[in-house]
Amino acid sequence: MDNHIAAVELEKAYRLLNHGPTVLVSAEHDGVDNVMAAAWSCALDFAPPKVTVVLDKATKTRELVEHSGCFVLQVPNAAQLALTQAVGSSSLSAAPDKLQQAGVHLFRMDDYRLPFVSGCSAWLACRLIPELHNQQTYDLFIGEVVAAWADTRVFRNGHWDFEHAGPQWRSLHYIAGGQYYAIGEALHARDGKPD
Amino acid sequence: MDNHIAAVELEKAYRLLNHGPTVLVSAEHDGVDNVMAAAWSCALDFAPPKVTVVLDKATKTRELVEHSGCFVLQVPNAAQLALTQAVGSSSLSAAPDKLQQAGVHLFRMDDYRLPFVSGCSAWLACRLIPELHNQQTYDLFIGEVVAAWADTRVFRNGHWDFEHAGPQWRSLHYIAGGQYYAIGEALHARDGKPD
Repeated sequence: MDNHIAAVELEKAYRLLNHGPTVLVSAEHDGVDNVMAAAWSCALDFAPPKVTVVLDKATKTRELVEHSGCFVLQVPNAAQLALTQAVGSSSLSAAPDKLQQAGVHLFRMDDYRLPFVSGCSAWLACRLIPELHNQQTYDLFIGEVVAAWADTRVFRNGHWDFEHAGPQWRSLHYIAGGQYYAIGEALHARDGKPD
Repeated sequence: MDNHIAAVELEKAYRLLNHGPTVLVSAEHDGVDNVMAAAWSCALDFAPPKVTVVLDKATKTRELVEHSGCFVLQVPNAAQLALTQAVGSSSLSAAPDKLQQAGVHLFRMDDYRLPFVSGCSAWLACRLIPELHNQQTYDLFIGEVVAAWADTRVFRNGHWDFEHAGPQWRSLHYIAGGQYYAIGEALHARDGKPD
Protein backbone atom coordinates (compact mmCIF):
# COMPACT_ATOMS: atom_id res chain seq x y z
CA MET A 1 0.00 0.00 0.00
CA ASP A 2 1.25 3.47 -0.99
CA ASN A 3 2.77 5.12 2.07
CA HIS A 4 0.69 8.27 1.56
CA ILE A 5 -2.53 6.31 2.08
CA ALA A 6 -3.97 6.30 5.59
CA ALA A 7 -7.16 4.85 7.02
CA VAL A 8 -10.00 7.32 7.73
CA GLU A 9 -12.05 6.75 10.87
CA LEU A 10 -15.47 5.41 9.88
CA GLU A 11 -17.30 8.20 11.72
CA LYS A 12 -15.53 10.75 9.51
CA ALA A 13 -15.92 8.85 6.24
CA TYR A 14 -18.97 10.93 5.22
CA ARG A 15 -16.65 13.95 4.90
CA LEU A 16 -14.96 12.35 1.93
CA LEU A 17 -18.21 12.75 -0.05
CA ASN A 18 -19.92 15.60 1.75
CA HIS A 19 -18.89 18.28 -0.76
CA GLY A 20 -20.51 16.38 -3.62
CA PRO A 21 -17.59 15.25 -5.80
CA THR A 22 -18.00 13.08 -8.86
CA VAL A 23 -16.78 9.60 -7.88
CA LEU A 24 -15.37 6.54 -9.55
CA VAL A 25 -17.27 3.32 -8.81
CA SER A 26 -15.31 0.10 -9.06
CA ALA A 27 -16.30 -3.53 -8.58
CA GLU A 28 -15.14 -7.03 -9.37
CA HIS A 29 -16.94 -10.30 -9.98
CA ASP A 30 -15.62 -13.60 -11.22
CA GLY A 31 -12.27 -12.13 -12.24
CA VAL A 32 -13.78 -9.18 -14.13
CA ASP A 33 -12.88 -5.70 -12.86
CA ASN A 34 -14.58 -2.51 -13.93
CA VAL A 35 -14.60 1.19 -13.11
CA MET A 36 -17.17 3.84 -14.05
CA ALA A 37 -17.68 7.52 -13.19
CA ALA A 38 -20.78 8.64 -11.29
CA ALA A 39 -21.83 12.20 -10.54
CA TRP A 40 -24.90 10.92 -8.69
CA SER A 41 -23.45 9.61 -5.47
CA CYS A 42 -24.12 10.99 -2.01
CA ALA A 43 -23.62 10.38 1.69
CA LEU A 44 -26.70 8.88 3.37
CA ASP A 45 -25.78 8.35 7.03
CA PHE A 46 -23.04 9.02 9.61
CA ALA A 47 -22.84 5.86 11.74
CA PRO A 48 -22.60 3.36 10.37
CA PRO A 49 -21.74 5.45 7.32
CA LYS A 50 -23.90 4.77 4.30
CA VAL A 51 -23.87 6.07 0.75
CA THR A 52 -26.12 6.14 -2.30
CA VAL A 53 -25.04 5.81 -5.91
CA VAL A 54 -27.06 5.68 -9.12
CA LEU A 55 -25.99 2.85 -11.44
CA ASP A 56 -27.72 2.73 -14.80
CA LYS A 57 -28.96 -0.64 -16.07
CA ALA A 58 -26.70 -0.30 -19.11
CA THR A 59 -23.50 -0.29 -17.03
CA LYS A 60 -21.32 -3.35 -16.59
CA THR A 61 -20.28 -2.09 -13.15
CA ARG A 62 -23.88 -2.43 -11.94
CA GLU A 63 -23.86 -6.11 -12.92
CA LEU A 64 -20.61 -6.65 -10.99
CA VAL A 65 -22.06 -4.92 -7.92
CA GLU A 66 -25.25 -6.97 -8.09
CA HIS A 67 -23.26 -10.20 -8.30
CA SER A 68 -20.54 -9.45 -5.79
CA GLY A 69 -22.53 -7.38 -3.27
CA CYS A 70 -19.74 -4.87 -2.84
CA PHE A 71 -18.11 -1.88 -4.49
CA VAL A 72 -15.63 0.94 -3.96
CA LEU A 73 -16.41 4.65 -4.27
CA GLN A 74 -13.30 6.69 -4.83
CA VAL A 75 -12.77 10.43 -5.13
CA PRO A 76 -10.73 11.28 -8.23
CA ASN A 77 -8.80 14.55 -8.55
CA ALA A 78 -7.91 17.09 -11.22
CA ALA A 79 -4.83 15.08 -12.23
CA GLN A 80 -7.32 12.33 -13.19
CA LEU A 81 -9.63 14.46 -15.33
CA ALA A 82 -8.97 12.54 -18.56
CA LEU A 83 -9.17 9.18 -16.77
CA THR A 84 -12.49 10.16 -15.13
CA GLN A 85 -13.99 11.31 -18.41
CA ALA A 86 -12.73 8.16 -20.17
CA VAL A 87 -14.20 5.65 -17.69
CA GLY A 88 -17.44 7.66 -17.73
CA SER A 89 -17.69 7.62 -21.54
CA SER A 90 -17.14 4.00 -22.56
CA SER A 91 -18.55 0.67 -21.45
CA LEU A 92 -16.60 -2.49 -20.75
CA SER A 93 -19.21 -4.40 -22.77
CA ALA A 94 -18.30 -2.44 -25.93
CA ALA A 95 -14.59 -1.89 -25.14
CA PRO A 96 -13.00 -4.86 -23.35
CA ASP A 97 -9.73 -2.89 -22.97
CA LYS A 98 -11.56 0.10 -21.46
CA LEU A 99 -9.50 0.27 -18.27
CA GLN A 100 -6.19 0.03 -20.12
CA GLN A 101 -7.29 2.69 -22.62
CA ALA A 102 -8.34 4.99 -19.80
CA GLY A 103 -4.99 4.57 -18.01
CA VAL A 104 -6.56 2.96 -14.94
CA HIS A 105 -4.16 1.15 -12.63
CA LEU A 106 -5.88 -1.02 -10.02
CA PHE A 107 -4.48 -2.11 -6.68
CA ARG A 108 -5.74 -4.08 -3.67
CA MET A 109 -6.05 -2.53 -0.22
CA ASP A 110 -5.28 -4.60 2.88
CA ASP A 111 -7.43 -7.72 2.85
CA TYR A 112 -10.26 -6.36 0.70
CA ARG A 113 -11.09 -8.36 -2.42
CA LEU A 114 -11.99 -5.19 -4.30
CA PRO A 115 -10.36 -3.22 -7.11
CA PHE A 116 -9.12 0.22 -5.99
CA VAL A 117 -8.08 2.90 -8.52
CA SER A 118 -4.55 4.22 -8.02
CA GLY A 119 -3.97 7.97 -7.79
CA CYS A 120 -7.33 8.93 -6.27
CA SER A 121 -7.64 11.16 -3.20
CA ALA A 122 -9.93 8.85 -1.17
CA TRP A 123 -11.50 5.40 -1.23
CA LEU A 124 -14.61 4.01 0.48
CA ALA A 125 -15.09 0.23 0.51
CA CYS A 126 -18.82 -0.50 0.58
CA ARG A 127 -21.08 -3.48 1.18
CA LEU A 128 -24.29 -3.36 -0.85
CA ILE A 129 -27.45 -3.16 1.25
CA PRO A 130 -29.85 -4.95 -1.09
CA GLU A 131 -32.94 -2.82 -1.77
CA LEU A 132 -34.41 -4.34 -4.91
CA HIS A 133 -37.28 -1.89 -5.29
CA ASN A 134 -34.86 1.08 -5.32
CA GLN A 135 -32.46 -0.73 -7.62
CA GLN A 136 -35.14 -1.67 -10.15
CA THR A 137 -37.29 1.45 -10.02
CA TYR A 138 -34.69 4.19 -9.56
CA ASP A 139 -31.30 2.56 -10.36
CA LEU A 140 -30.51 3.62 -6.79
CA PHE A 141 -28.01 1.53 -4.81
CA ILE A 142 -27.34 1.87 -1.09
CA GLY A 143 -24.06 0.78 0.48
CA GLU A 144 -22.64 0.65 3.96
CA VAL A 145 -19.09 1.95 4.17
CA VAL A 146 -17.00 -0.77 5.83
CA ALA A 147 -13.59 0.93 5.53
CA ALA A 148 -12.22 4.20 4.18
CA TRP A 149 -8.83 5.62 3.30
CA ALA A 150 -7.45 8.89 1.98
CA ASP A 151 -4.21 10.25 0.58
CA THR A 152 -2.67 12.25 3.41
CA ARG A 153 -1.39 14.85 0.96
CA VAL A 154 -4.98 16.15 0.58
CA PHE A 155 -7.02 14.71 3.51
CA ARG A 156 -5.62 14.26 7.00
CA ASN A 157 -6.82 14.32 10.60
CA GLY A 158 -10.38 14.08 9.35
CA HIS A 159 -10.18 17.18 7.12
CA TRP A 160 -9.76 17.98 3.46
CA ASP A 161 -6.84 20.32 2.85
CA PHE A 162 -7.48 21.37 -0.73
CA GLU A 163 -6.24 24.88 0.03
CA HIS A 164 -2.70 23.70 0.76
CA ALA A 165 -2.45 20.72 -1.59
CA GLY A 166 -1.55 21.50 -5.21
CA PRO A 167 -4.25 22.16 -7.84
CA GLN A 168 -3.89 18.59 -9.13
CA TRP A 169 -5.53 17.38 -5.88
CA ARG A 170 -8.80 19.27 -6.31
CA SER A 171 -11.89 17.08 -6.48
CA LEU A 172 -13.90 17.02 -9.73
CA HIS A 173 -17.56 18.06 -9.96
CA TYR A 174 -19.14 17.03 -13.26
CA ILE A 175 -21.82 19.04 -15.02
CA ALA A 176 -22.38 17.69 -18.58
CA GLY A 177 -20.66 17.38 -21.95
CA GLY A 178 -17.13 16.96 -20.59
CA GLN A 179 -17.49 20.07 -18.42
CA TYR A 180 -16.34 19.85 -14.79
CA TYR A 181 -15.56 22.26 -12.01
CA ALA A 182 -12.73 21.68 -9.55
CA ILE A 183 -13.53 22.35 -5.90
CA GLY A 184 -12.46 25.86 -4.96
CA GLU A 185 -11.79 28.22 -2.10
CA ALA A 186 -12.32 27.33 1.59
CA LEU A 187 -15.04 29.34 3.34
CA HIS A 188 -15.72 29.27 7.05
CA ALA A 189 -19.10 30.23 8.50
CA ARG A 190 -18.63 32.36 11.58
CA ASP A 191 -20.94 30.47 13.91
CA GLY A 192 -19.71 27.02 12.87
CA LYS A 193 -18.27 24.85 15.59
CA PRO A 194 -14.82 23.79 14.37
CA ASP A 195 -13.73 20.31 15.33
CA MET B 1 -40.67 37.54 -9.95
CA ASP B 2 -37.16 39.02 -10.01
CA ASN B 3 -36.29 39.81 -13.62
CA HIS B 4 -33.00 37.89 -13.38
CA ILE B 5 -34.88 34.63 -12.74
CA ALA B 6 -35.58 32.45 -15.76
CA ALA B 7 -37.15 29.03 -16.13
CA VAL B 8 -34.75 26.10 -16.74
CA GLU B 9 -35.89 23.41 -19.16
CA LEU B 10 -36.82 20.29 -17.18
CA GLU B 11 -34.41 18.11 -19.16
CA LYS B 12 -31.53 20.31 -18.00
CA ALA B 13 -32.68 20.66 -14.38
CA TYR B 14 -30.28 17.91 -13.22
CA ARG B 15 -27.37 20.23 -14.08
CA LEU B 16 -28.37 22.54 -11.25
CA LEU B 17 -27.41 19.81 -8.75
CA ASN B 18 -24.93 17.74 -10.73
CA HIS B 19 -21.82 19.30 -9.15
CA GLY B 20 -22.99 18.34 -5.67
CA PRO B 21 -23.77 21.66 -3.98
CA THR B 22 -25.20 21.95 -0.50
CA VAL B 23 -28.85 22.93 -0.93
CA LEU B 24 -31.56 24.67 1.03
CA VAL B 25 -34.76 22.66 1.43
CA SER B 26 -37.95 24.63 1.97
CA ALA B 27 -41.54 23.56 2.50
CA GLU B 28 -44.86 24.88 3.79
CA HIS B 29 -47.84 23.28 5.47
CA ASP B 30 -50.86 24.83 7.08
CA GLY B 31 -49.35 28.32 7.02
CA VAL B 32 -45.98 27.26 8.51
CA ASP B 33 -42.90 27.86 6.34
CA ASN B 34 -39.47 26.42 7.02
CA VAL B 35 -36.03 26.21 5.43
CA MET B 36 -33.13 23.91 6.29
CA ALA B 37 -29.71 23.23 4.77
CA ALA B 38 -28.88 19.78 3.37
CA ALA B 39 -25.52 18.59 2.11
CA TRP B 40 -27.02 15.19 1.29
CA SER B 41 -29.05 15.89 -1.80
CA CYS B 42 -28.42 14.47 -5.25
CA ALA B 43 -29.84 14.14 -8.75
CA LEU B 44 -31.52 10.76 -9.34
CA ASP B 45 -32.86 10.87 -12.91
CA PHE B 46 -32.90 12.96 -16.08
CA ALA B 47 -36.45 12.70 -17.49
CA PRO B 48 -38.60 13.24 -15.67
CA PRO B 49 -35.95 14.75 -13.42
CA LYS B 50 -35.86 13.30 -9.94
CA VAL B 51 -33.82 14.11 -6.84
CA THR B 52 -33.00 12.59 -3.48
CA VAL B 53 -32.60 14.44 -0.21
CA VAL B 54 -31.94 13.16 3.32
CA LEU B 55 -34.25 14.74 5.92
CA ASP B 56 -33.56 13.78 9.51
CA LYS B 57 -36.52 12.86 11.71
CA ALA B 58 -35.64 15.74 14.06
CA THR B 59 -36.24 18.40 11.39
CA LYS B 60 -39.42 20.45 11.18
CA THR B 61 -38.97 20.69 7.40
CA ARG B 62 -39.40 16.93 7.10
CA GLU B 63 -42.77 17.15 8.84
CA LEU B 64 -43.87 19.90 6.42
CA VAL B 65 -42.76 17.81 3.43
CA GLU B 66 -44.59 14.74 4.72
CA HIS B 67 -47.80 16.72 5.21
CA SER B 68 -47.72 18.84 2.06
CA GLY B 69 -46.16 16.33 -0.35
CA CYS B 70 -43.92 18.95 -1.92
CA PHE B 71 -40.73 20.91 -1.34
CA VAL B 72 -38.22 23.20 -3.00
CA LEU B 73 -34.49 22.51 -3.36
CA GLN B 74 -32.51 25.67 -3.94
CA VAL B 75 -28.83 26.24 -4.60
CA PRO B 76 -27.42 28.90 -2.28
CA ASN B 77 -24.27 30.85 -3.08
CA ALA B 78 -21.25 32.31 -1.30
CA ALA B 79 -23.14 35.53 -0.55
CA GLN B 80 -25.50 33.32 1.51
CA LEU B 81 -22.84 31.54 3.57
CA ALA B 82 -24.06 32.90 6.92
CA LEU B 83 -27.72 32.29 5.99
CA THR B 84 -26.96 28.71 4.93
CA GLN B 85 -25.05 27.98 8.13
CA ALA B 86 -27.82 29.58 10.21
CA VAL B 87 -30.73 27.61 8.72
CA GLY B 88 -28.61 24.45 9.03
CA SER B 89 -27.82 25.04 12.70
CA SER B 90 -31.15 25.80 14.36
CA SER B 91 -34.58 24.19 14.33
CA LEU B 92 -37.92 25.95 13.94
CA SER B 93 -39.23 23.85 16.83
CA ALA B 94 -36.69 25.43 19.22
CA ALA B 95 -36.47 28.87 17.55
CA PRO B 96 -39.82 30.05 16.15
CA ASP B 97 -38.13 33.15 14.68
CA LYS B 98 -35.45 31.02 12.97
CA LEU B 99 -36.07 32.34 9.44
CA GLN B 100 -36.07 35.97 10.53
CA GLN B 101 -32.90 35.45 12.58
CA ALA B 102 -31.19 33.80 9.61
CA GLY B 103 -32.15 36.66 7.29
CA VAL B 104 -34.30 34.46 5.06
CA HIS B 105 -36.67 36.28 2.74
CA LEU B 106 -39.26 34.04 1.10
CA PHE B 107 -41.11 34.66 -2.13
CA ARG B 108 -43.63 32.80 -4.31
CA MET B 109 -42.85 31.72 -7.85
CA ASP B 110 -45.57 31.80 -10.52
CA ASP B 111 -48.51 29.70 -9.35
CA TYR B 112 -46.59 27.42 -7.00
CA ARG B 113 -47.83 27.31 -3.41
CA LEU B 114 -44.30 26.82 -2.12
CA PRO B 115 -41.84 29.03 -0.23
CA PHE B 116 -38.77 29.99 -2.31
CA VAL B 117 -35.67 31.56 -0.72
CA SER B 118 -34.65 34.90 -2.25
CA GLY B 119 -31.08 35.41 -3.40
CA CYS B 120 -30.31 31.80 -4.33
CA SER B 121 -28.78 30.79 -7.67
CA ALA B 122 -31.35 28.13 -8.62
CA TRP B 123 -34.62 26.62 -7.47
CA LEU B 124 -36.22 23.21 -8.13
CA ALA B 125 -39.89 22.75 -7.22
CA CYS B 126 -40.44 19.09 -6.33
CA ARG B 127 -43.36 16.77 -5.76
CA LEU B 128 -42.66 14.09 -3.16
CA ILE B 129 -42.77 10.53 -4.52
CA PRO B 130 -43.90 8.69 -1.39
CA GLU B 131 -41.53 5.84 -0.55
CA LEU B 132 -42.30 5.09 3.08
CA HIS B 133 -39.67 2.38 3.51
CA ASN B 134 -36.88 4.74 2.37
CA GLN B 135 -38.25 7.59 4.46
CA GLN B 136 -38.53 5.53 7.64
CA THR B 137 -35.40 3.41 7.30
CA TYR B 138 -32.95 5.83 5.70
CA ASP B 139 -34.53 9.32 6.10
CA LEU B 140 -34.28 9.31 2.30
CA PHE B 141 -36.86 11.30 0.33
CA ILE B 142 -37.36 11.14 -3.44
CA GLY B 143 -38.90 13.98 -5.39
CA GLU B 144 -39.87 14.63 -8.97
CA VAL B 145 -38.81 18.04 -10.22
CA VAL B 146 -41.91 19.71 -11.66
CA ALA B 147 -40.35 23.08 -12.47
CA ALA B 148 -36.94 24.73 -12.20
CA TRP B 149 -35.51 28.24 -12.39
CA ALA B 150 -32.10 29.86 -12.15
CA ASP B 151 -30.64 33.33 -11.82
CA THR B 152 -29.38 34.19 -15.29
CA ARG B 153 -26.36 35.97 -13.80
CA VAL B 154 -24.85 32.56 -12.96
CA PHE B 155 -26.78 29.92 -14.98
CA ARG B 156 -28.03 30.53 -18.50
CA ASN B 157 -28.69 28.57 -21.69
CA GLY B 158 -28.49 25.36 -19.68
CA HIS B 159 -24.99 26.06 -18.28
CA TRP B 160 -23.46 27.29 -15.05
CA ASP B 161 -21.17 30.24 -15.64
CA PHE B 162 -19.34 30.41 -12.32
CA GLU B 163 -16.15 31.44 -14.07
CA HIS B 164 -17.62 34.74 -15.28
CA ALA B 165 -20.03 35.49 -12.44
CA GLY B 166 -18.53 37.17 -9.35
CA PRO B 167 -17.19 35.12 -6.42
CA GLN B 168 -20.43 35.76 -4.47
CA TRP B 169 -22.23 33.46 -6.94
CA ARG B 170 -20.12 30.35 -6.27
CA SER B 171 -22.08 27.38 -4.96
CA LEU B 172 -21.37 26.13 -1.42
CA HIS B 173 -20.12 22.63 -0.64
CA TYR B 174 -20.35 21.81 3.05
CA ILE B 175 -17.87 19.58 4.88
CA ALA B 176 -18.41 19.81 8.67
CA GLY B 177 -18.07 22.23 11.61
CA GLY B 178 -18.92 25.37 9.62
CA GLN B 179 -16.34 24.53 6.94
CA TYR B 180 -17.40 24.86 3.31
CA TYR B 181 -15.69 25.01 -0.05
CA ALA B 182 -16.89 27.23 -2.87
CA ILE B 183 -17.01 25.65 -6.31
CA GLY B 184 -13.83 26.48 -8.21
CA GLU B 185 -12.18 26.50 -11.59
CA ALA B 186 -13.80 25.16 -14.78
CA LEU B 187 -12.09 22.13 -16.32
CA HIS B 188 -12.91 20.65 -19.69
CA ALA B 189 -12.14 17.04 -20.56
CA ARG B 190 -10.72 16.82 -24.04
CA ASP B 191 -12.97 14.06 -25.36
CA GLY B 192 -16.16 15.48 -23.87
CA LYS B 193 -18.92 16.29 -26.31
CA PRO B 194 -19.84 19.92 -25.66
CA ASP B 195 -23.48 20.82 -26.03
